[in-house]
Amino acid sequence: RTLRIGLIPGDGIGKEVIPAGRRILEALPASLGLKFEFTPLEAGFETFERTGAALPDATVEVLRSGCDGALFGAVSSPSHPVKGYSSPIVALRKKLDLYANVRPVKSVIPATATASSSSSPIKPVDMVIVRENTEDLYVKEEKTFDGPQGRVAEAVKRISERASHRIAAMAGEIALRRQNIRAAGTPSIHASPLVTITHKSNVLSQTDGLFRTTARAALAAPRFASVAVEEQIVDSMVYKLFRQPEAYDVIVAPNLYGDILSDGAAALVGSLGLVPSANVGEGFAIGEPCHGSAPDIQGQGIANPIATLRSTALMLEFLEEEAAAARIYAAVDANLAEGKLLSPDLGGTAKTDEVVEDILRRL
Amino acid sequence: RTLRIGLIPGDGIGKEVIPAGRRILEALPASLGLKFEFTPLEAGFETFERTGAALPDATVEVLRSGCDGALFGAVSSPSHPVKGYSSPIVALRKKLDLYANVRPVKSVIPATATASSSSSPIKPVDMVIVRENTEDLYVKEEKTFDGPQGRVAEAVKRISERASHRIAAMAGEIALRRQNIRAAGTPSIHASPLVTITHKSNVLSQTDGLFRTTARAALAAPRFASVAVEEQIVDSMVYKLFRQPEAYDVIVAPNLYGDILSDGAAALVGSLGLVPSANVGEGFAIGEPCHGSAPDIQGQGIANPIATLRSTALMLEFLEEEAAAARIYAAVDANLAEGKLLSPDLGGTAKTDEVVEDILRRL
Ligand SMILES: CC(C)[C@H](C(=O)O)[C@@H](O)C(=O)O
Ligand SMILES: CC(C)[C@H](C(=O)O)[C@@H](O)C(=O)O
Repeated sequence: RTLRIGLIPGDGIGKEVIPAGRRILEALPASLGLKFEFTPLEAGFETFERTGAALPDATVEVLRSGCDGALFGAVSSPSHPVKGYSSPIVALRKKLDLYANVRPVKSVIPATATASSSSSPIKPVDMVIVRENTEDLYVKEEKTFDGPQGRVAEAVKRISERASHRIAAMAGEIALRRQNIRAAGTPSIHASPLVTITHKSNVLSQTDGLFRTTARAALAAPRFASVAVEEQIVDSMVYKLFRQPEAYDVIVAPNLYGDILSDGAAALVGSLGLVPSANVGEGFAIGEPCHGSAPDIQGQGIANPIATLRSTALMLEFLEEEAAAARIYAAVDANLAEGKLLSPDLGGTAKTDEVVEDILRRL
Repeated sequence: RTLRIGLIPGDGIGKEVIPAGRRILEALPASLGLKFEFTPLEAGFETFERTGAALPDATVEVLRSGCDGALFGAVSSPSHPVKGYSSPIVALRKKLDLYANVRPVKSVIPATATASSSSSPIKPVDMVIVRENTEDLYVKEEKTFDGPQGRVAEAVKRISERASHRIAAMAGEIALRRQNIRAAGTPSIHASPLVTITHKSNVLSQTDGLFRTTARAALAAPRFASVAVEEQIVDSMVYKLFRQPEAYDVIVAPNLYGDILSDGAAALVGSLGLVPSANVGEGFAIGEPCHGSAPDIQGQGIANPIATLRSTALMLEFLEEEAAAARIYAAVDANLAEGKLLSPDLGGTAKTDEVVEDILRRL
């Protein structure tokens, strides 16, 4: 099978990590029977400055008609509002109807740690945040007007039954898939599948109320009979995320809460540089590291490539190439467990390329 | 001076902790020259079930015309939507124009800890979250309609120049006040005052953009010349909150982000049972523990009274009784630093009353 992969490095360290994704795909063992064709594509703030469009139509067209999946790096947000500029990744998610943003967050106990010490303050984490990716405040319908006491701006938060249903069903499927992997013998901190629905329906009774009741209904389907379902109000979810991260398996949330929760969960495992995501639609997936364009370290060759490598694996999972994905995850975990070649965000001194090469060796 | 204080225990453990607030006020040394008159007032889910109103008009009237301040416990959110019920504390904040929700989060190094061990994973925390308290998604303007693919609900997120300006100015004042207290010799992890403006203007360019530019403008006043100002996008703020909590002094945020951030910050200091808040308007303040009604422990007499005791002190601060407030803070800190009489949320076995009595002894 030949997979056609679009490569969208974007800005900043996006340019340094996306090549790592390409390299690991090219290095996959031939026995997996996978071939790849890569198409470089443009998007981002630099593209906007050069062409006037942060997300050129050509990029969307090629992804739509000529690709099976893609890797997206990161884009810079200008530090002051720039007329006509808006985030290309948000636009891409909507244009390709990539309705789920899937963000697994998992700790790897380093070989040097006394993993079994019960007094250890580091708690094991193995969760997936399943973030709705097309609506909520991200519809970006805003207006500004003059009120009697100064300017007033309003934004629309939109929650639909359709989007809430499909994201909750996706969370249920992911919970089942994780359970199957565990049943096949992968060690895990979770004994049985759990989906936690996050919302703020105590304040937003209609919007978040619709998310909540729709998600409940979707997860009540017979298919999900083995999946336990619970709820957490978003503020208390953030609290619990830090107090009891080991209690969570799959968390499903509207767009903005999912955005916030996934950065919070990344903090639990030590670095945003470790956390992957996939933007998933029908038969299409874009892998995207959760970190941003990191202007502070750009150009130094020290960005952590692991978020991108894991995002590459996650993309493969959603393209139903699970065996290939598993190889990448295992190679990354082996690098982390040994803990010798780590990038600076993890306390090491290795360069991006050195980390990539160490992981390729373990493939 | 006689202060007239409304007491609104609300539901659940609210009933167990609000009496502690009253006791500590009554126990303040006579040398402070303060007298208190208490008025018990009703609000909450039980009140709703009994009277049909979660926030009786009488409660609002007495607070408005017969009180200088108040203590609010907690209210239960029904686990399923109940027609006609909505949160009385959200309504109260708006009705009394208590535009600032001030939430200090501070770690006390327990006497048993090796505070100076640099390898300690516990980082010192000393921050105040200043949350806008009247608008954002809390305007609760929602509607539901039938779309072509099922039901759709929309909520309004409203950000005004006026509310953004006054909350940022409040954050600036608090930063200055904290600096004065430090200058008077109180040890602190902060060398100079800093306000961090939190928003998501990379997506919400008009609403959060207005919050951001207005807050910047308010903090550019000559009065705040000594206050450093920076910004964090809310998702990355949650990440940084957990990776580098020691870097933050005063954080100012729109209502919903402030709600989420303050629960997150509470996790940093070990328990929501420690974290106070004050709802502050012109010449009026309501102290309110950040924890909820905690139905799981209600009736057992084991709720941590410290959030309420600190909220009582915080209320006094905003009623310009800083000496009295300082006495309460010091007594609470002494209890925690000794670490002998702690409630179960902190790993101890003491009952609410035992903790209160220990703190009263130290007053
Ligand atoms: C860059 C920004 C628009 C984006 C988002 O909010 O979705 C980012 O934070 C993310 O999580 O992918
Ligand atoms: C109970 C709820 C409505 C409230 C809020 O969201 O403001 C609570 O979480 C708080 O922080 O005081």
